[in-house]
Amino acid sequence: VKIAGTGNVFVRRAPPPGSKPGDFVLPEVCHPTRIRALVFDADRCDEHRVESQDDLVSVAKAAGVSWIDVQGLGDGSILRWIRDGLCVHPLAVADVANTPQRPKFEDFGEIDLIVSQQVWVGDDGVELEQVSILTGPGWVISVQESPGEVFDDVRSRIVAGTTVRRMGCDYLVYSLLDAVIDGYFPVIEQVGEVLDGLEEQITDRPGREALPRLHAVRRTLLALHRVLWRQRDAFGTMLRDDRAPFSDPVRVYVRDAYDHALQALDAVETYREMTVSLMDLYLSGVSNRLNEIMKTLTIMATIFIPLTFIVGVYGMNFEVMPELRWRWGYPAVWVVIVVVSVSLLVWFRRRGWLGERRGIEKE
Amino acid sequence: VKIAGTGNVFVRRAPPPGSKPGDFVLPEVCHPTRIRALVFDADRCDEHRVESQDDLVSVAKAAGVSWIDVQGLGDGSILRWIRDGLCVHPLAVADVANTPQRPKFEDFGEIDLIVSQQVWVGDDGVELEQVSILTGPGWVISVQESPGEVFDDVRSRIVAGTTVRRMGCDYLVYSLLDAVIDGYFPVIEQVGEVLDGLEEQITDRPGREALPRLHAVRRTLLALHRVLWRQRDAFGTMLRDDRAPFSDPVRVYVRDAYDHALQALDAVETYREMTVSLMDLYLSGVSNRLNEIMKTLTIMATIFIPLTFIVGVYGMNFEVMPELRWRWGYPAVWVVIVVVSVSLLVWFRRRGWLGERRGIEKE
Amino acid sequence: VKIAGTGNVFVRRAPPPGSKPGDFVLPEVCHPTRIRALVFDADRCDEHRVESQDDLVSVAKAAGVSWIDVQGLGDGSILRWIRDGLCVHPLAVADVANTPQRPKFEDFGEIDLIVSQQVWVGDDGVELEQVSILTGPGWVISVQESPGEVFDDVRSRIVAGTTVRRMGCDYLVYSLLDAVIDGYFPVIEQVGEVLDGLEEQITDRPGREALPRLHAVRRTLLALHRVLWRQRDAFGTMLRDDRAPFSDPVRVYVRDAYDHALQALDAVETYREMTVSLMDLYLSGVSNRLNEIMKTLTIMATIFIPLTFIVGVYGMNFEVMPELRWRWGYPAVWVVIVVVSVSLLVWFRRRGWLGERRGIEKE
Amino acid sequence: VKIAGTGNVFVRRAPPPGSKPGDFVLPEVCHPTRIRALVFDADRCDEHRVESQDDLVSVAKAAGVSWIDVQGLGDGSILRWIRDGLCVHPLAVADVANTPQRPKFEDFGEIDLIVSQQVWVGDDGVELEQVSILTGPGWVISVQESPGEVFDDVRSRIVAGTTVRRMGCDYLVYSLLDAVIDGYFPVIEQVGEVLDGLEEQITDRPGREALPRLHAVRRTLLALHRVLWRQRDAFGTMLRDDRAPFSDPVRVYVRDAYDHALQALDAVETYREMTVSLMDLYLSGVSNRLNEIMKTLTIMATIFIPLTFIVGVYGMNFEVMPELRWRWGYPAVWVVIVVVSVSLLVWFRRRGWLGERRGIEKE
Amino acid sequence: VKIAGTGNVFVRRAPPPGSKPGDFVLPEVCHPTRIRALVFDADRCDEHRVESQDDLVSVAKAAGVSWIDVQGLGDGSILRWIRDGLCVHPLAVADVANTPQRPKFEDFGEIDLIVSQQVWVGDDGVELEQVSILTGPGWVISVQESPGEVFDDVRSRIVAGTTVRRMGCDYLVYSLLDAVIDGYFPVIEQVGEVLDGLEEQITDRPGREALPRLHAVRRTLLALHRVLWRQRDAFGTMLRDDRAPFSDPVRVYVRDAYDHALQALDAVETYREMTVSLMDLYLSGVSNRLNEIMKTLTIMATIFIPLTFIVGVYGMNFEVMPELRWRWGYPAVWVVIVVVSVSLLVWFRRRGWLGERRGIEKE
Repeated sequence: VKIAGTGNVFVRRAPPPGSKPGDFVLPEVCHPTRIRALVFDADRCDEHRVESQDDLVSVAKAAGVSWIDVQGLGDGSILRWIRDGLCVHPLAVADVANTPQRPKFEDFGEIDLIVSQQVWVGDDGVELEQVSILTGPGWVISVQESPGEVFDDVRSRIVAGTTVRRMGCDYLVYSLLDAVIDGYFPVIEQVGEVLDGLEEQITDRPGREALPRLHAVRRTLLALHRVLWRQRDAFGTMLRDDRAPFSDPVRVYVRDAYDHALQALDAVETYREMTVSLMDLYLSGVSNRLNEIMKTLTIMATIFIPLTFIVGVYGMNFEVMPELRWRWGYPAVWVVIVVVSVSLLVWFRRRGWLGERRGIEKE
Repeated sequence: VKIAGTGNVFVRRAPPPGSKPGDFVLPEVCHPTRIRALVFDADRCDEHRVESQDDLVSVAKAAGVSWIDVQGLGDGSILRWIRDGLCVHPLAVADVANTPQRPKFEDFGEIDLIVSQQVWVGDDGVELEQVSILTGPGWVISVQESPGEVFDDVRSRIVAGTTVRRMGCDYLVYSLLDAVIDGYFPVIEQVGEVLDGLEEQITDRPGREALPRLHAVRRTLLALHRVLWRQRDAFGTMLRDDRAPFSDPVRVYVRDAYDHALQALDAVETYREMTVSLMDLYLSGVSNRLNEIMKTLTIMATIFIPLTFIVGVYGMNFEVMPELRWRWGYPAVWVVIVVVSVSLLVWFRRRGWLGERRGIEKE
Repeated sequence: VKIAGTGNVFVRRAPPPGSKPGDFVLPEVCHPTRIRALVFDADRCDEHRVESQDDLVSVAKAAGVSWIDVQGLGDGSILRWIRDGLCVHPLAVADVANTPQRPKFEDFGEIDLIVSQQVWVGDDGVELEQVSILTGPGWVISVQESPGEVFDDVRSRIVAGTTVRRMGCDYLVYSLLDAVIDGYFPVIEQVGEVLDGLEEQITDRPGREALPRLHAVRRTLLALHRVLWRQRDAFGTMLRDDRAPFSDPVRVYVRDAYDHALQALDAVETYREMTVSLMDLYLSGVSNRLNEIMKTLTIMATIFIPLTFIVGVYGMNFEVMPELRWRWGYPAVWVVIVVVSVSLLVWFRRRGWLGERRGIEKE
Repeated sequence: VKIAGTGNVFVRRAPPPGSKPGDFVLPEVCHPTRIRALVFDADRCDEHRVESQDDLVSVAKAAGVSWIDVQGLGDGSILRWIRDGLCVHPLAVADVANTPQRPKFEDFGEIDLIVSQQVWVGDDGVELEQVSILTGPGWVISVQESPGEVFDDVRSRIVAGTTVRRMGCDYLVYSLLDAVIDGYFPVIEQVGEVLDGLEEQITDRPGREALPRLHAVRRTLLALHRVLWRQRDAFGTMLRDDRAPFSDPVRVYVRDAYDHALQALDAVETYREMTVSLMDLYLSGVSNRLNEIMKTLTIMATIFIPLTFIVGVYGMNFEVMPELRWRWGYPAVWVVIVVVSVSLLVWFRRRGWLGERRGIEKE
Repeated sequence: VKIAGTGNVFVRRAPPPGSKPGDFVLPEVCHPTRIRALVFDADRCDEHRVESQDDLVSVAKAAGVSWIDVQGLGDGSILRWIRDGLCVHPLAVADVANTPQRPKFEDFGEIDLIVSQQVWVGDDGVELEQVSILTGPGWVISVQESPGEVFDDVRSRIVAGTTVRRMGCDYLVYSLLDAVIDGYFPVIEQVGEVLDGLEEQITDRPGREALPRLHAVRRTLLALHRVLWRQRDAFGTMLRDDRAPFSDPVRVYVRDAYDHALQALDAVETYREMTVSLMDLYLSGVSNRLNEIMKTLTIMATIFIPLTFIVGVYGMNFEVMPELRWRWGYPAVWVVIVVVSVSLLVWFRRRGWLGERRGIEKE
């Protein structure tokens, strides 16, 4: 699990400083706009085409609940249709286009804007993309920048005629939000698996390549944490705020989605604390290896350096060195060598430095 | 004390993304459902059989307090009986099945859901399991996923006819929650004992195997902390919220249980701070050992390397080396060797590097 | 200053899980109950004997303020007298017995329970013991588990007839609390002295034994912090809560005690931050010593290893080694040796590695 | 990206202690005052000259919205004109002059003061400068200490006759604030790029010069964080406070600017957490390099020190050393040498210490 | 900048535990009391003598604003005069004497107590001293324990007849508080300069003596932070609390002083975070130096240890060593030596270990 460069998460696409409030910019790589409009009530469910501002307005004003699902911003004309045709506040439209915005709920009179972030694991790691939901009297517009499948199940449920058909706009908005939040759990689970793997790796053989992976996981968790934190706040506002577009029976459902966001946040926070603990584990693993290396060196050097000195003594060429002429001089030196090295070994053992290999496991 | 893999604590069993709200999934390993229904009031206490939805409804509607204790979800039919027979909100039933949920209190009109987590020390370490309590007019349903003994004492007290018999549903709910919370203390005490052992081990001989144990304790405490934190919040809501199903005399008891949760939380937080302090202790122990190892090496090397050089000088084979012919050349070299090594030893002692063993204790 | 094992601070004596709410357990080592009852008003002050439940009730109901000071729980009969004779809520009595409870204020109708923790420096370090104060109409009962002198001054002031005689129960309760809080300052002062000593020790000679002492101080501060934090909360509740048993003139005094608790908390928090800073100081002291050790080794080894190589060259036994026959070969080698070692010394001095001892001070 | 010395961010220019409240001091390097006054309404937009207190008052009292843009404080006479001519509270004027003040909103009756900080990347790194906005009935005064272009776009939009012309003073105030906040994003983006570069550098080759750069980034982020935090608070007050000079339609815009400040704050906080993670990465990179260096040394020393001892043995000059006379003595020594070094190499390989170079990449 | 020992900041002078509430103790070194009483209104300003309780009362009751500035507590009689003559609550008087109290505002009916802490740089570092302000109807009493000049400017302004003469007691109280707060900025600026110096020192040559200085700065900042934090709270209370003795026009000024306290707090918090960053910088500087030292050792040892082995081989005395008799044996050994050392040097250069000096700068 990687998270794409800092860029895509924290840098906000915005019109240049000094632009008029309400201006918006389109992404450099623009996906063509694809609009799927459903108008439904308990009895029927029709798909409409939206190819002009007038289409949009007539669909939005149709009887029943109108859901206009926009995928891709194209040349931005859909945004202008929304702004001009449905009298949406320019700032709300700008928030839809100038992504990423933090997850939030904003009330613009009878129209409300809900911003959320969907998440999935892409080729470059965890990716986040803004999902914006505009809701007015009798209509809901959802906007994603690139085509995605996050709302496919909701559509199927509408077509299949489950509960959502009998409820109003607010239940639809809840269903969309719920679909977005539910998408967090598989991602968090994958991060958890990566962490489990890292933990095992660091405990067993704390190699150097664990580090960049741990760092990448921390970045991912950092991004998820921030988004979920804001998401939680947004849900909190929606639950408390009287201006939120939810009736009482639907509010129970929103509370459930809030609960899911909280649960995702809990898991992310726990994982973040685990990365701290893993970092400690890693660092002390490195220190332990250094200790072990130095112990090896010290044992070898401490044993052989004195011995080398001893044999060096009898390598001197003084004319008068009585020991050299002794019959048992040479064996005596060996005795000294053995005694010295055995005493050192005993001393090391007493200090618990010997048995490195086993020591590693048993120590 | 270990805590089973990350999986069981933070990964939530949930229907696949896109499912209908209120859907639930059953655990892979399903314990057969075992239902023990008690209907009691101050005068009598009868055990009933619940083998169908109708049984359930008639028990729940019986005069007095009905307590239906469900252990194991089986094929989930009990959940459907509850949902359909007692008109419990589908989201409440889903929260009972899709475990783990965070401890919480949720009000669904005249029916309330209280989620808690029981804890015990199993074979793989500390284990958590969700306990869900549903309460409606005149009935209380408690659900555990696997058979457990946490409520046995409550049952005995009911049968024995103590206070609980004279009180209403709310006192029963309190008794169940109190039983769950009281289960935390033996576990926390065990964690404390492990920590005490670790502290002793790290202070005496900071070996390497202390680390994974410390890490495991941190994980356990992390999990307990999160659960207790949420538990505290849930109690806080129950005490403050007018919709909580507690009469004033029982509220005093709930405040007592809240107090116990707070106390458990305090202990867990204190232990968490102690693990941080222990980690510091461990790391500086490792550093100290490295210092000691290097000191040994440095002392040995620093003494013998110059000596080896000196004897090397007189091992040279130059034809003209007057010292080699001196009568007292060889003893003179020994004098030099002794002088050099003694001066170095004195220098080391002045710097306080000698007396390593004792130094360790006395330093 | 040590704090006794984790046990006595964080483990709570409680009846086994599953007990009836309101059950209590007595400590294993039970101090015999000693009861000193004073009944006083502005004009008189009499000491009464309390040897039965009836005595207790009659003393409590006597005109004026009745203060029953209980030291030691004995066989628990005093607790039963209180519960049954004075109609105290069983949970309140259980909180008195099942220690330690966090400091708190709890209102049980016309009777209130205030739990606090007194502190002193015992043989094993800082010790905490619960002080419970029950107050009802016209009477105050203070309970300590073991005999202690914390309330002696209050008693003297009552007998001597100072302000406390002219005021009601609430002023007596305040006086008891104030006596408990004032006991924190000498202890905190002692901890501060220990810290000052540790700071000096760590700055001068960062030996290894500073560490367990620092760890012990951290534990002590951790325990004090937790208790004082709760104490502050308890005072906050008493000041804000209308149900707290304090008249307005006495509330000014309680605010003063609250202030003292805050001050003690401030000092403890400051000391805790200082231990963090000391830990950093210690760790970098250890690192600095390692650097110094390694510098010594490196200087010695770097100078003598090349020299040993040089003399080794002329210790070779090749038949054709012209230098060996040169008249000035031997002195030339000495020249080389001197040149090499002097250049290395100059190089080390340039890098600032020489003059270790002085370097330590001057560096 | 550097941030200029601590001085310019945290030290406040203030009159000497003991001055009269409302006194102000001028910066040592005073930019000459340049005043550009615009009076506009939906229909017209005139530029006026302000060269005396009377000019100032007549411009401020002109019909329509008057915007007086002051760049540079000169000899401070403009401040006195504002204070005396427009009856602005002396403390408000002092806050304009005694920079830097924290971003804030303060209400002085019918006149309000809004303090903000603009940011840009100068030659010495990120630079902050106070922007003060005073607003009264029908007039807005913006003050910068040195000439800057932050408001040029707002001026162009006014001249060009966009929305701002049709709205009141409050929309102008919003536009100015919005221009200031929008200036944060390019700076934050640059910091993000520097961080990305640092991350790459630290992952690839954790050299020493990464550290001061990381430290500089931390300082920059610290300064930005503090300013944005206060900015957020100031916006929060403006949105909640009834005395803030914003009508309801403009409040929607202010909420948008608040949102931008929050977004900038989010990015800065995220970057701050990333610097912590990078610091960890750097430190463990340093530790890893030490391990690698020590491994090299240990391998070389451990192999050659015993060998040197062996050849030293046969360099001794004892008269009786039978091995020296053996025909195969010399080859036998070579066999011993090869056996010893191969066994050590095998042992090292088993412990995974060999293949350092590759080991670095693969390990 | 040093801060005097822990003692003077955190240890509170208090009567022994068990004293009567409202008792106070005098400092061991008592400065003789010096009282300067001013009675002024818009028209006049007279200095009075206060040598008895009656003087005090008559001055306090004089028409206009009476300011009694007490420096030094002497034998405490002034405190008794205040308590008895002006009916000040004994607890308020005790707070004046039993220093240090945390900065706070306390309301005792028609008399209020404001406690603050003045700061200056003394011989032993930053010093704090309590300033207590008592204010009742028509009079203000300020008390310092030792003579100080903090209020001299206020006195001059009163004598000179500026605004303060025309305002009431509350403006005088504000002026005194403002004088105290303004005294923080020069101190904080000095701390900032010390930090700048430390930063330069640590970046350039991370010597050991930087550490105790850094530790001292941390302690100073810790003390300042705690005091300013409480000061901020006290101001917050004074601004919000209806019982605070400030009229609306003066409240604007108090808000300004609050703002200054906030600004000082901001600077202190920023400096505290910078010390953390500096600590990191220092520690990694130490690690880098260790790496450098070890690199030097490793290079020298790794080159010369194999060479010493080689020459050792030909120092052996075997009778049959054909190489010794070869004509080109000796030059061949030199060739081997050169080849080995050059290959090792090349290998080191490849790993980037060579060019240490330059490496340090360039690396």
